[in-house]
Amino acid sequence: MKKISASIIGAASISAAFLMKFIARHKNVELKHAYSSSQAGTPVSSYHSFLTGIVDMEFETLDVKDMMFDDSDVVFIARPHGKFLDQSALMIKGAIHKKLGTKFIDLSADFRLKDVSVYEHWYSVRHHHEDLLETAVYGLPELYCDEIKDATLVANPGCYPTCAILSLAPFIANNIKHDGIFINALSGVSGAGIRPSAKNIAMNVSENIFAYKVGGAHQHTPEIEQELSNFSSSVKVTFTPHVAPFKYGIIQTTCVKLLEKVSASELRKIYEEFYKDSRFVNIIAAPDLPEVKDVVGTNFANIGIKVDNRTNTLVLVSCIDNVIKGAAGQAVQNMNIMYRFDEDEGLR
Amino acid sequence: MKKISASIIGAASISAAFLMKFIARHKNVELKHAYSSSQAGTPVSSYHSFLTGIVDMEFETLDVKDMMFDDSDVVFIARPHGKFLDQSALMIKGAIHKKLGTKFIDLSADFRLKDVSVYEHWYSVRHHHEDLLETAVYGLPELYCDEIKDATLVANPGCYPTCAILSLAPFIANNIKHDGIFINALSGVSGAGIRPSAKNIAMNVSENIFAYKVGGAHQHTPEIEQELSNFSSSVKVTFTPHVAPFKYGIIQTTCVKLLEKVSASELRKIYEEFYKDSRFVNIIAAPDLPEVKDVVGTNFANIGIKVDNRTNTLVLVSCIDNVIKGAAGQAVQNMNIMYRFDEDEGLR
Amino acid sequence: MKKISASIIGAASISAAFLMKFIARHKNVELKHAYSSSQAGTPVSSYHSFLTGIVDMEFETLDVKDMMFDDSDVVFIARPHGKFLDQSALMIKGAIHKKLGTKFIDLSADFRLKDVSVYEHWYSVRHHHEDLLETAVYGLPELYCDEIKDATLVANPGCYPTCAILSLAPFIANNIKHDGIFINALSGVSGAGIRPSAKNIAMNVSENIFAYKVGGAHQHTPEIEQELSNFSSSVKVTFTPHVAPFKYGIIQTTCVKLLEKVSASELRKIYEEFYKDSRFVNIIAAPDLPEVKDVVGTNFANIGIKVDNRTNTLVLVSCIDNVIKGAAGQAVQNMNIMYRFDEDEGLR
Amino acid sequence: MKKISASIIGAASISAAFLMKFIARHKNVELKHAYSSSQAGTPVSSYHSFLTGIVDMEFETLDVKDMMFDDSDVVFIARPHGKFLDQSALMIKGAIHKKLGTKFIDLSADFRLKDVSVYEHWYSVRHHHEDLLETAVYGLPELYCDEIKDATLVANPGCYPTCAILSLAPFIANNIKHDGIFINALSGVSGAGIRPSAKNIAMNVSENIFAYKVGGAHQHTPEIEQELSNFSSSVKVTFTPHVAPFKYGIIQTTCVKLLEKVSASELRKIYEEFYKDSRFVNIIAAPDLPEVKDVVGTNFANIGIKVDNRTNTLVLVSCIDNVIKGAAGQAVQNMNIMYRFDEDEGLR
Repeated sequence: MKKISASIIGAASISAAFLMKFIARHKNVELKHAYSSSQAGTPVSSYHSFLTGIVDMEFETLDVKDMMFDDSDVVFIARPHGKFLDQSALMIKGAIHKKLGTKFIDLSADFRLKDVSVYEHWYSVRHHHEDLLETAVYGLPELYCDEIKDATLVANPGCYPTCAILSLAPFIANNIKHDGIFINALSGVSGAGIRPSAKNIAMNVSENIFAYKVGGAHQHTPEIEQELSNFSSSVKVTFTPHVAPFKYGIIQTTCVKLLEKVSASELRKIYEEFYKDSRFVNIIAAPDLPEVKDVVGTNFANIGIKVDNRTNTLVLVSCIDNVIKGAAGQAVQNMNIMYRFDEDEGLR
Repeated sequence: MKKISASIIGAASISAAFLMKFIARHKNVELKHAYSSSQAGTPVSSYHSFLTGIVDMEFETLDVKDMMFDDSDVVFIARPHGKFLDQSALMIKGAIHKKLGTKFIDLSADFRLKDVSVYEHWYSVRHHHEDLLETAVYGLPELYCDEIKDATLVANPGCYPTCAILSLAPFIANNIKHDGIFINALSGVSGAGIRPSAKNIAMNVSENIFAYKVGGAHQHTPEIEQELSNFSSSVKVTFTPHVAPFKYGIIQTTCVKLLEKVSASELRKIYEEFYKDSRFVNIIAAPDLPEVKDVVGTNFANIGIKVDNRTNTLVLVSCIDNVIKGAAGQAVQNMNIMYRFDEDEGLR
Repeated sequence: MKKISASIIGAASISAAFLMKFIARHKNVELKHAYSSSQAGTPVSSYHSFLTGIVDMEFETLDVKDMMFDDSDVVFIARPHGKFLDQSALMIKGAIHKKLGTKFIDLSADFRLKDVSVYEHWYSVRHHHEDLLETAVYGLPELYCDEIKDATLVANPGCYPTCAILSLAPFIANNIKHDGIFINALSGVSGAGIRPSAKNIAMNVSENIFAYKVGGAHQHTPEIEQELSNFSSSVKVTFTPHVAPFKYGIIQTTCVKLLEKVSASELRKIYEEFYKDSRFVNIIAAPDLPEVKDVVGTNFANIGIKVDNRTNTLVLVSCIDNVIKGAAGQAVQNMNIMYRFDEDEGLR
Repeated sequence: MKKISASIIGAASISAAFLMKFIARHKNVELKHAYSSSQAGTPVSSYHSFLTGIVDMEFETLDVKDMMFDDSDVVFIARPHGKFLDQSALMIKGAIHKKLGTKFIDLSADFRLKDVSVYEHWYSVRHHHEDLLETAVYGLPELYCDEIKDATLVANPGCYPTCAILSLAPFIANNIKHDGIFINALSGVSGAGIRPSAKNIAMNVSENIFAYKVGGAHQHTPEIEQELSNFSSSVKVTFTPHVAPFKYGIIQTTCVKLLEKVSASELRKIYEEFYKDSRFVNIIAAPDLPEVKDVVGTNFANIGIKVDNRTNTLVLVSCIDNVIKGAAGQAVQNMNIMYRFDEDEGLR
């Protein structure tokens, strides 16, 4: 079978490194270009040293000509939010206009939020491409599998939102009365990128946990709310992210103040039904609960459900690998769906 | 100045090891006996190897004769909850009866809860010493300094309760209207003891976080509620503990659903006023927040305050060293208060 | 293509867990039985929770009848050294005798050492199956690929020996004059197993490194010496192992006192030539050196070469994942060679 | 008793932060100035957040006037090697010239090496202050206590050299015949400073170990050789440093090829005799060996001794806290000796 060809823009990022790892073992896809202006000319395996023996090519500079992508079937965009929004948009529109058939999977936040003013508020960037927001499909396969199948542009979800939405969607969709959703999220340090900063040096990360953007300041908040509000009107969440001393993974412990009685076992049935066709969601059987280590290196989202009867509070524990199900793995899952490959090809 | 003499029962525990370290550098106290039946005869520094060069004595067996404690001014009890309750009680009552003047600081939970039925419910142990519960003073110096001064028996608080009560007391004491307190707590692995178990092996702790006793099942819950309820009638909390991949420290992120408007800066003033005489509580100035690493190795409790105006939720972040302010350090602080030593002697 | 069937004895070990993970994604192999007497009846994914969503079967008890293995093409033995030597030997001999054609890959040390007296000295166990030592092929594919192809019994190498032999073989094979080989080895805590002990609790592993079996006391020493002595008469090494605060991986820094001049670049050429057909050995280009993190999760052995001209000392740095190239991955690589599958099938 | 006053130049470094912590609890010393041009005006506890509640002052700019130090008895210099050599030298010479009586403890390498050409070779910096090298005393109290007592300028040793010299000095001093010293050293990440870089980000440090400056390239090599050569002519060592995934501490495993027979117990007696008056050196009793965790937070150097009789190799294991005995603690120890304070004041 002929392989499709894939290119990655922003290939110096961690997410891109994992994309290359998954593509290298994908039986239907071949990596064509790894674009990174900052690293052009460097061997990929010299910069991402864990790809030694796995990826044997050099980073290339992206130029206008490449933007036509006549040699790439699918293009992954793994660049920072906002800064390259206009360039990405022009590129995508160009491919659509020329009917190249190229498919785009954007790992940034640029096409996730449907309301331009919400995007502009949280990201402090002007968004002049509202038209593409209709084209873009929010790439959470457990909710939008059918739309993803025929999408030209997939907006790959954020890491925290993936974990939060998957853990709350069945609950919200069932219209169980509640008042207050409090998401306590802990992310591994890979979430802080590989550019050295006070946020990611070992002296500040090891033997430590710190909260950041506390009090409704994290830009993933509106993304969680947008998607949950599709199930029920205007869901609001209190979202508190932290950096924890592990490299990969997210654990979220979410408290929901219940206004009606519902048992953990009833909820577990609801969740199992909701995700019965989802290859990558595991509802953990009581009395066990998800742990970070069990999802690291995988594309799984593991979800556990408890109810505190003393305070009538639902306590959800959910875990993903932030770089895999929260980024590169989910991007490959989306590609697999778009091209009718096995949903877990390259992700086993 | 003549030093007072101190003995420790249950000296093989981590808390006891830290007690010995603090006493070794305390200018007013001398360690007399380190009792441990399981380690009797072993050099203390061979078992607690980080005390090499610091403590030069052997563990001894505790027998009935020793229970008279005619050579100890103060006795620290650092044994497991419940199992030794009767023995501790008889020992304390004996000393009181004989008017030995011995003072006791018990690091277990056995004398913390004022309501015997609550203790029996949460610890699954019968409590036949209700009389001692009136004698016992809850040893949180920031709340009960005066009572501690003249106490014969101090019930040294639990680690999670110390962190939770200190972070919530000023808020509750000010009667700010609210509905729902959600405490998300993460403890270092020292909280799981040094007896090898699935809970504390590195393979299950490193690069991981796991929740445990979720859904109102942790025995520290009633201790938090008892103390906060002293400020306002019948406070209830949803408490979710986790083990995190660091050795020492606790971080608690607490969400309180507010029913009235109050700003973070107003609250910060209230907290600063409440703790203005407290040597060991730091209210962290905005925009900073407490981090685990800043309290490790110290007797400090650091507290940070934010308000999420979108959801009208108070978000408190509080940190302590679980073995120091959460156990051994607080025990020494209590001793210092009982004997009118400098409050931070041995704890600098 | 019809899959072959594989069974694992001692399936509760870490190595076995990784074997199951690799077999689950292997296109030519199907897992038939996961034998563990201690865990019989437990779902595999409940005990090895990181196999949730990957392995859906229960542990079984191994009994005499199973020993015939008429439904297994290949049997992996992942049990402790010595204790099950007799049982393994009878089982293997039985299969040979009955001409079942079953192939065995033993991850223990029981069939690695060719000299029974050496085995008995280092393992303090009597070895009554010298005949099988001739049958057994030492399963280091980079040295014994041809022998492995037709082996009935492969003795899968130890983790430290794999790393040490691969890093030293080309040097020794080239008969460069030297006097003294000093191997400083650091292993992740997975090497200490998952049975809770003082050696593997987080309190003793995190923020720590400790040496053990120092001074020629580690049983992997004779294994390293046996294999290197095949290239040159009676090689001796000073081997010092340590436990380091990471979960997976080994890094060895080996100093060899040189008696003749040789440059790092000459050696690098020798090594590249030696391993030119080896899929899983990377000679790291100067000035870079291997790091643990780059091999974790892979079947690679990465080797770096420096020479200290001031002291005329060769310094080799070599890294593997102790559970993969040092155990389960190498076992799968051996199976792939035995069955003419792609050498990296299941290991990508 | 009147306290002496101390000032610190280069107060934004980790070593300086620990100096401030130790001075804050020192009964004979008061911190006068914390100089840091880059952080001038910032509260010390805001930059070094673990000093919250401990140090309550601001960083100041160092200017020429301050260089007279008429208000400081002792000045700690904690600045990078080479860059400030001229400024330090002029400052020290000025104080000597004006007979201010100021004492200086320099934590950089600028006055450690007695041979200017060796310094210039290893540090690639011109050294125009050879006269001060005679004034400077190498501040390893276990070797130079008498000289330190009356020193005006103490060159505080490097972290690796402290650990290496203490572990090898008794052996070398006893003229035991040998041929080859191989020091394998692992340092916590604090040794890589707190300025964000690829060397100290958690993604490159956690779950990893990497060697650096391999092959006789680390500038601490000549410092080790200079000091050991005082005991025996021209000692040479092969020194291989690594960064390990812990924050604080050094462990060195040193192999010495012996040319005569000597037992571990004989050596242990020699070491105990050598260090019998040393408050901060512990010779660990067999069969135990030093571990990093036991020295972290202390000023101890722990040393363990084994002999591999198979290869006639001495194996030494030695541990210190790199920032304490390897920098700030040793500086305070030196100050204590210079001022006849208790040697462990501030260091308990």
